[in-house]
Amino acid sequence: MLKLFYMPGACSLAPHIALEEVGASFEAVRVNLKEGEQRRPEYLKINPKGRVPALATDRGVLTENPAILAYVAQTFPAAKLAPLDDPFAFAEVQAFNVFLTSSVHVAFSHAFRPERYGEASAAEGIRAKVPESLTEYFGIIEDKLSDGRTWVHGESYGLSDLYLFVFAGWLQRGSFVDPAKIPNVMAHHARVGARPAVQKALATEAA
Amino acid sequence: MLKLFYMPGACSLAPHIALEEVGASFEAVRVNLKEGEQRRPEYLKINPKGRVPALATDRGVLTENPAILAYVAQTFPAAKLAPLDDPFAFAEVQAFNVFLTSSVHVAFSHAFRPERYGEASAAEGIRAKVPESLTEYFGIIEDKLSDGRTWVHGESYGLSDLYLFVFAGWLQRGSFVDPAKIPNVMAHHARVGARPAVQKALATEAA
Repeated sequence: MLKLFYMPGACSLAPHIALEEVGASFEAVRVNLKEGEQRRPEYLKINPKGRVPALATDRGVLTENPAILAYVAQTFPAAKLAPLDDPFAFAEVQAFNVFLTSSVHVAFSHAFRPERYGEASAAEGIRAKVPESLTEYFGIIEDKLSDGRTWVHGESYGLSDLYLFVFAGWLQRGSFVDPAKIPNVMAHHARVGARPAVQKALATEAA
Repeated sequence: MLKLFYMPGACSLAPHIALEEVGASFEAVRVNLKEGEQRRPEYLKINPKGRVPALATDRGVLTENPAILAYVAQTFPAAKLAPLDDPFAFAEVQAFNVFLTSSVHVAFSHAFRPERYGEASAAEGIRAKVPESLTEYFGIIEDKLSDGRTWVHGESYGLSDLYLFVFAGWLQRGSFVDPAKIPNVMAHHARVGARPAVQKALATEAA
């Protein structure tokens, strides 16, 4: 059976939602970040990078959200979470998701964990840059959504929607981006949040 | 025809190599970063993120290396640059490539462009952290290669190898990681560098 190693509030919420969306049989295993569990030898055997998410499968462990999300979509094709038979459309999904990982998530991490990116003396200067970066990145996403489309890639809900949901939610953790500048992102966040699979994943993580 | 927008020495070398490996017919279009060409309106129409690489196709433009690389592998399946028929093995490739993008490349960028990640006052503290981060990340890769495998995922050369080649090459740009600690990474870099497709891409970018 699939095992998802997650931490409440972390980006592991994205594969958690994906597994609920496809109706997978899986175990959600909570990792206690505050107690440093992700750096203990038992967890480093699962993911040497000491991060969540990690998805344990019969074949081994997968890490990195864009990879895990694509795997879930490919393993449960009936749920149609990605355009699996169209390499260009699939690459557009992956490009969006990698942008979330390497630009959007990285920018948030500079606010939440500046010690990962600089010495202690630099923490304040690192945090101070985050609103500018996130305003630029969410501006690019807002532009994409501003043609009235329902979901990130058009009329089909999928991986990019549930993954964006996580980071749009993180905007509430600080004064990063003026919500008035990204109305379509906010409306998209509400649409995704209303889905039963999303509600179920959130309830499990809050329990 | 495919058009690859690249900058000599940038991470766009990875899709450049991939296109040579598969024998694609493509045009390599040089973007002059030093003159700020990537921030001009003409280029922002191609990639609103103002970065390289961008791959223009008949269907539109793709960005983000893990997405572009997977697209090249899927569009030229005969070259076998990725295990396209095995979702788990494909996810392992994507996980490795996303790690390169979001951790390894991001760490290098903190050395090369600290202004992207903090205010000017933080630049020194940001740069000072890079050797520690890169030593950790390349240590994880070294562990993976240390069982004597020829290529990143075993005995088949592919996307992760040519992508790793780019960043192992960047190690020469500073005193980031002690080469004695990563002998398998260095040997892998030499193996990839000897391939004709790699030599051809490097020659084009140096011309």
